[in-house]
Amino acid sequence: MSVGMFTSFITRHWFSPTAIAIWSDDATLQAWLDVESALARAQAKLEMIPQDAADRIATCCRAERFDHERLSREIAFAQHPFVPVLKQLEESCGEPAAGFLHWGATTQNIFDTAIALQLKQTHAHLIGVLQRCEDHVGKLALQHQATLQAGRTHGQHALPMTFGFKAAAWHAELRRGRERLAARANGAFLTYFGGAIGTFAAMGGKGRAVEEEAARLLGLAPARLPMRSSFDRVADYLTGFAVLSGTLQKIAGDIVFLQRTEVGEVEEAFHMGKVGSSTMAQKRNPSAALVLVSLCRLLEARMPLILSSMVRMDEGDSSATNVCDIVVAEMAILAASIAEAAERVLGGLKVNEAAMARNLELTQGLIMSEAAMMQLAPMIGRHKAHHLLYEAAQETATQGTPFGETMRNALQRVELADVRLNLSPSAYLGEISEIIRDGSG
Amino acid sequence: MSVGMFTSFITRHWFSPTAIAIWSDDATLQAWLDVESALARAQAKLEMIPQDAADRIATCCRAERFDHERLSREIAFAQHPFVPVLKQLEESCGEPAAGFLHWGATTQNIFDTAIALQLKQTHAHLIGVLQRCEDHVGKLALQHQATLQAGRTHGQHALPMTFGFKAAAWHAELRRGRERLAARANGAFLTYFGGAIGTFAAMGGKGRAVEEEAARLLGLAPARLPMRSSFDRVADYLTGFAVLSGTLQKIAGDIVFLQRTEVGEVEEAFHMGKVGSSTMAQKRNPSAALVLVSLCRLLEARMPLILSSMVRMDEGDSSATNVCDIVVAEMAILAASIAEAAERVLGGLKVNEAAMARNLELTQGLIMSEAAMMQLAPMIGRHKAHHLLYEAAQETATQGTPFGETMRNALQRVELADVRLNLSPSAYLGEISEIIRDGSG
Amino acid sequence: MSVGMFTSFITRHWFSPTAIAIWSDDATLQAWLDVESALARAQAKLEMIPQDAADRIATCCRAERFDHERLSREIAFAQHPFVPVLKQLEESCGEPAAGFLHWGATTQNIFDTAIALQLKQTHAHLIGVLQRCEDHVGKLALQHQATLQAGRTHGQHALPMTFGFKAAAWHAELRRGRERLAARANGAFLTYFGGAIGTFAAMGGKGRAVEEEAARLLGLAPARLPMRSSFDRVADYLTGFAVLSGTLQKIAGDIVFLQRTEVGEVEEAFHMGKVGSSTMAQKRNPSAALVLVSLCRLLEARMPLILSSMVRMDEGDSSATNVCDIVVAEMAILAASIAEAAERVLGGLKVNEAAMARNLELTQGLIMSEAAMMQLAPMIGRHKAHHLLYEAAQETATQGTPFGETMRNALQRVELADVRLNLSPSAYLGEISEIIRDGSG
Amino acid sequence: MSVGMFTSFITRHWFSPTAIAIWSDDATLQAWLDVESALARAQAKLEMIPQDAADRIATCCRAERFDHERLSREIAFAQHPFVPVLKQLEESCGEPAAGFLHWGATTQNIFDTAIALQLKQTHAHLIGVLQRCEDHVGKLALQHQATLQAGRTHGQHALPMTFGFKAAAWHAELRRGRERLAARANGAFLTYFGGAIGTFAAMGGKGRAVEEEAARLLGLAPARLPMRSSFDRVADYLTGFAVLSGTLQKIAGDIVFLQRTEVGEVEEAFHMGKVGSSTMAQKRNPSAALVLVSLCRLLEARMPLILSSMVRMDEGDSSATNVCDIVVAEMAILAASIAEAAERVLGGLKVNEAAMARNLELTQGLIMSEAAMMQLAPMIGRHKAHHLLYEAAQETATQGTPFGETMRNALQRVELADVRLNLSPSAYLGEISEIIRDGSG
Repeated sequence: MSVGMFTSFITRHWFSPTAIAIWSDDATLQAWLDVESALARAQAKLEMIPQDAADRIATCCRAERFDHERLSREIAFAQHPFVPVLKQLEESCGEPAAGFLHWGATTQNIFDTAIALQLKQTHAHLIGVLQRCEDHVGKLALQHQATLQAGRTHGQHALPMTFGFKAAAWHAELRRGRERLAARANGAFLTYFGGAIGTFAAMGGKGRAVEEEAARLLGLAPARLPMRSSFDRVADYLTGFAVLSGTLQKIAGDIVFLQRTEVGEVEEAFHMGKVGSSTMAQKRNPSAALVLVSLCRLLEARMPLILSSMVRMDEGDSSATNVCDIVVAEMAILAASIAEAAERVLGGLKVNEAAMARNLELTQGLIMSEAAMMQLAPMIGRHKAHHLLYEAAQETATQGTPFGETMRNALQRVELADVRLNLSPSAYLGEISEIIRDGSG
Repeated sequence: MSVGMFTSFITRHWFSPTAIAIWSDDATLQAWLDVESALARAQAKLEMIPQDAADRIATCCRAERFDHERLSREIAFAQHPFVPVLKQLEESCGEPAAGFLHWGATTQNIFDTAIALQLKQTHAHLIGVLQRCEDHVGKLALQHQATLQAGRTHGQHALPMTFGFKAAAWHAELRRGRERLAARANGAFLTYFGGAIGTFAAMGGKGRAVEEEAARLLGLAPARLPMRSSFDRVADYLTGFAVLSGTLQKIAGDIVFLQRTEVGEVEEAFHMGKVGSSTMAQKRNPSAALVLVSLCRLLEARMPLILSSMVRMDEGDSSATNVCDIVVAEMAILAASIAEAAERVLGGLKVNEAAMARNLELTQGLIMSEAAMMQLAPMIGRHKAHHLLYEAAQETATQGTPFGETMRNALQRVELADVRLNLSPSAYLGEISEIIRDGSG
Repeated sequence: MSVGMFTSFITRHWFSPTAIAIWSDDATLQAWLDVESALARAQAKLEMIPQDAADRIATCCRAERFDHERLSREIAFAQHPFVPVLKQLEESCGEPAAGFLHWGATTQNIFDTAIALQLKQTHAHLIGVLQRCEDHVGKLALQHQATLQAGRTHGQHALPMTFGFKAAAWHAELRRGRERLAARANGAFLTYFGGAIGTFAAMGGKGRAVEEEAARLLGLAPARLPMRSSFDRVADYLTGFAVLSGTLQKIAGDIVFLQRTEVGEVEEAFHMGKVGSSTMAQKRNPSAALVLVSLCRLLEARMPLILSSMVRMDEGDSSATNVCDIVVAEMAILAASIAEAAERVLGGLKVNEAAMARNLELTQGLIMSEAAMMQLAPMIGRHKAHHLLYEAAQETATQGTPFGETMRNALQRVELADVRLNLSPSAYLGEISEIIRDGSG
Repeated sequence: MSVGMFTSFITRHWFSPTAIAIWSDDATLQAWLDVESALARAQAKLEMIPQDAADRIATCCRAERFDHERLSREIAFAQHPFVPVLKQLEESCGEPAAGFLHWGATTQNIFDTAIALQLKQTHAHLIGVLQRCEDHVGKLALQHQATLQAGRTHGQHALPMTFGFKAAAWHAELRRGRERLAARANGAFLTYFGGAIGTFAAMGGKGRAVEEEAARLLGLAPARLPMRSSFDRVADYLTGFAVLSGTLQKIAGDIVFLQRTEVGEVEEAFHMGKVGSSTMAQKRNPSAALVLVSLCRLLEARMPLILSSMVRMDEGDSSATNVCDIVVAEMAILAASIAEAAERVLGGLKVNEAAMARNLELTQGLIMSEAAMMQLAPMIGRHKAHHLLYEAAQETATQGTPFGETMRNALQRVELADVRLNLSPSAYLGEISEIIRDGSG
């Protein structure tokens, strides 16, 4: 009986299968065991435990050998998430290796290090997906660098631009989002082997060396001061997810609007068999973009939990780590899922150039009022030009006269009848081409 | 392969099995089918569809008849969560009944009404659990109405009180939390049968009658204006969960503190085999209270999602309803789970009266400084008494002289040497007994 | 030098002057003094302090008598927000009345009771504003009960409706929002006179009677169990603000969209001199609706602070009450401000019926596909009708053939050539009239 | 009449005067004018406007020349925050310079660039305060590297450590918090001169050159792609505040606990005249640490607003920028204020070594149970040692026998009577000295 968004038959297809696999129970258990194994091997190398024991432990650290149902039952009974795992691992290793397991470590060490491993795997996947998103958007930017479109602010037509410019801005945010995560990765994927309170008390003076060696084996960096109550390094990495989510929700929102019946400038990929409604046969909803918005919200809503979980009592506090153990996994799955959803949406986007051109005409030329002002500004000053335009614009808006005509009349009134204004949108694109070229290369 | 907090072997025991069952995929599918069945039966009664068709539909509305894997596959392909369900139901019903299914309804109608059904079931369970919590706490209040304890504010001993007073305050908040949910329930558990945009357009003028009859069949109330973009009634109910969570997290926080090694005034239930640490054998952590704190945080973090999901485009917006479909279920499970966790913690709480008495002595009598002030106030005014006490208190604090002695000296200095102050904590409990008696009856 | 959104020259006009006045420093100080005065008068009535003293105290409890700069300075020095107030009040009262001030109360008692007074005043104002919002919207609903408009879901045209239906749904949410606040008010505006930890320890056995009498004098209800750590009653009331905010943000979002250049179905009030842009003379932005959205977000973002501030250590915790003292005031001002902003937006809304009619045509008839399906359903079953319509709709969508024509061809193919479909939007409005009539009366 | 937390007489002393000055109305107006001035000077250099005009503009860009009350009035009337500023500036400049003002720019350009200036000033101040916090904590770490203290996890004594270790962990988090902000600063303090939609349309092909030059003049970096809807760079910087806040709230929480009456291991600075309570003379509350907690919460609660404000319609959206204009300022003031509060708290902290030593004894030796286990582990295996210790620990816990004695009996039972366990806390500190030395240098 499934329950929960990642596994429910209703929603499971929204989520990254790769990320789900990384954070599944099986993979989590295996990550714990990988950490125990690396710990034992590092300790053998440093002659803290026998090499034979470490070898035996490494061999037994295989998730498939475990009885999951028994684990679940014993965890509920012990009210402890790891001692039952250790127990089965001891049974599996047998004597004498069983006696050298988990040497000097505490449960949270294992969990935190395993999460670092899983986060690192998710990170690698995510970076790849984001690069493909950038590729899609970069292509859109170049392909549509001259496709005229209304630039809009506060929901109103503002100036003409091209769709390539919009795509270039998406591209720039996406690239920064990826680079940001990459820059934070190094400091976030760490081993923690400091034991019960982070002092390496049970490592006989070799704790920091063990940490270094185990980090090497696991492909992570050592925490050095493995205070269990310090979560800032992971929290900081996760803020990168939240900011990425802001970017993707913005892009998805743009697409939902541009696909509006009244706008029709872009359309999500459609295939026969895709259903918009159980009742309205005509519906071609931007379903994937809407799902993307939803997933971004689910991701961002978790950020406050991460921040408040930085506040931990003393040297360890399960009221916070319980939350993190759940929420870091969720955020990682959501981050991969929003990136994959974005890849699908962006990769399949259809652009309707005709609709863009048609909409650009909607204001009867008013979209060129700033252009007119800037043409008049050298003659009468920017401020007087603005005043003149303000009145003309209200006239067009209230009386419906085309803007070109209104302006001709207005210029006559101020004795500038000879001035010929260029009101062609393509003449007022500024440095769009350079920006697109620089930004999407 | 499990993934997600409700099913993971690590955390599943934190969650209410009852609530999990109510919100599982099987139960959700059944709830959808119950709604379809009620719709058909109501429509037959109103002579919109044949009675035979309604009977057949009702017979076929059984979740166990469905192929879940196929559902999941087809939902992913159609990118629609319900049309594949309808398809299997049509196949199951056969002609002619298949032609009368889902008459005049839209997918979100079915989902929203099903959620109302599931929420109502969760509510009934939750109310019961909360009543048992109140019973436990009410007993603690009466039993310990005279058990002296330090009252603390801002982390410092303030005045003497009794543990029964603390329990009475917990009790009052719990009771209000339950009453609040009960009061909101009526307006929140509704049927929605308005069709695509809430106008009952496809019901041939009988829509509101159908809604009324279907509501009767399902034990819900009709929405009357079933605008799909109006979520305020459910959102309002859910704020009751958030406020309840605040109460339970407060109580759990109190318990975590009172069980601190330095305080030791209460202790969570312990059984041999309960493990505090994989490495520190002595640990008796307040694990259940800490889990309760964690669950409350997980619940509260979902409230902003509910509020932002009230903001829906136009007459329907899946970017919001996608979120709600997931989050309402999660909040319901979490609400039941925090109540059950609280029941376990409160039901098993051990009170250490000796520790309470011992801690009350820690300030060497300073906890009675207000009592002293109020005894002097009628003689020299409250403000002068406060001034005298302030100096005496600093003297005890810095020089370690017991407060009784400091006061005798102080009184001598102001020529009140004859005054005999009653510095016995039990003499300064105010109206504790009346409050406890009134509040926990 | 102003700083902060309520007083900055940039933003102060966004906020309710009435609410600002209620929560200003002057008014807050006066509210504290009103509480002290009521306490003294109640205690005199119960013969705890001399009537003369109470009279003198009542006379001196006037904010304008205080030196604010000195207060501010002494508060910073004492690191206590109220003792410097008491000191000036003592000086003002003189002996012997000064000795009977603040008898048995603690600072938080005064603050919490004052907040209840201020909240009650804000509430009364807010209810009035909301009623005027409802009036505006109710009128829109009745006036436009037959004004055809496209109903939209997921950003796509769904079914025809009328603008009156949309307004009726807004009306219903607004009314529920107001009723909800009204229902919660009684339990939220309370006096707290329990003293340092809520036991009435310093009231000589008359504490509950004092609380009752003071509550009567102040027009509030007594808390009865005035535990300072119990914030659920106020928090619960404030959730009503958050839900109201969801409603108003939804309405504002609708208006922003409907005023989009491509849509043009409504327009905010405009006056000559209103400026959309410093550079684009044509801009007629929905500025007020956009400000409303912003204010709603600012309000909702404060809800988590309220919920987390319910979690208070022991019997008193300034880390939480510091937050509440600030945030309750902010939320109250914001609630009044969003209601006033909504009143302005809704009161000035211009409806463009022609644009509504024009947009309704945009899908070339596809908006009537469900209507067509429901006409065919009695002949061939709902499911087969849906299948037929799905294909026809895709044909119109991809090839641009008007829907009426596509359907004629489609019916011919399935040998229903004789069927005449009614594809007039006004024929498919369901029970809109009844709903509007019931909902906006 | 003051209103709002930054100016209220009750709370203004909680906030950084430096940051308040940076974000006051006067300073904000001046920052806007600085941006206009830099724009004009850059444009003169690039020969877009006359040098004389630029000089005149630069001279007139002085906030003290403005009539604030008139600004406020006109802003409310125009419903635009900047056009009234321009108007006064035009009047001040006179002809012909007035005609060259604000050339090619849009309001949001000015606001966003001004915010970058103000943020950069706040940043410089903040970094300095944080360095002083680190100095204080670094000194505590070195001074108390050998001061024994109980290490605590989940509220229970875990292992012995030293107070220097705790301070070293605080130090490491603080240092990372500062370095994080410093690393993000470069990419966040940007100029935006792209005009209405970010295309530099009104700059006659010289827009990017103007941006570069103006950035140089202002000490900022050019945005290059100045899309007004892209907020990720500022949002990312602000996450650094949120993470810093998590760190400071954790430290403050530790201090509040350590000052608890039952613990008494540290105490905030106290001075005669500091008041804990209006009624309880003895109270020495950790007021400053509690205020610090409150301020951190106020800061963190703003992060979701920043994230949701990244989601902006199209090329500009005041529903989002309205929020950011307010919230960025608030977060900046709060960030400086939490750092200053932390500096005060950490700089004045008194450490009670005797209390630390006394508390370490509270478990009658049980705190050494892991040490005992690790001494037995080489003889009988870690797992068997844990089992033996678990039973011994429960015996001490339930029967009160000192742990040393329990262990002697236990060892006898398993025929290890000859073993001598070292149960001295100072022998089980792990690599504390090395960690402190490395971390606080």
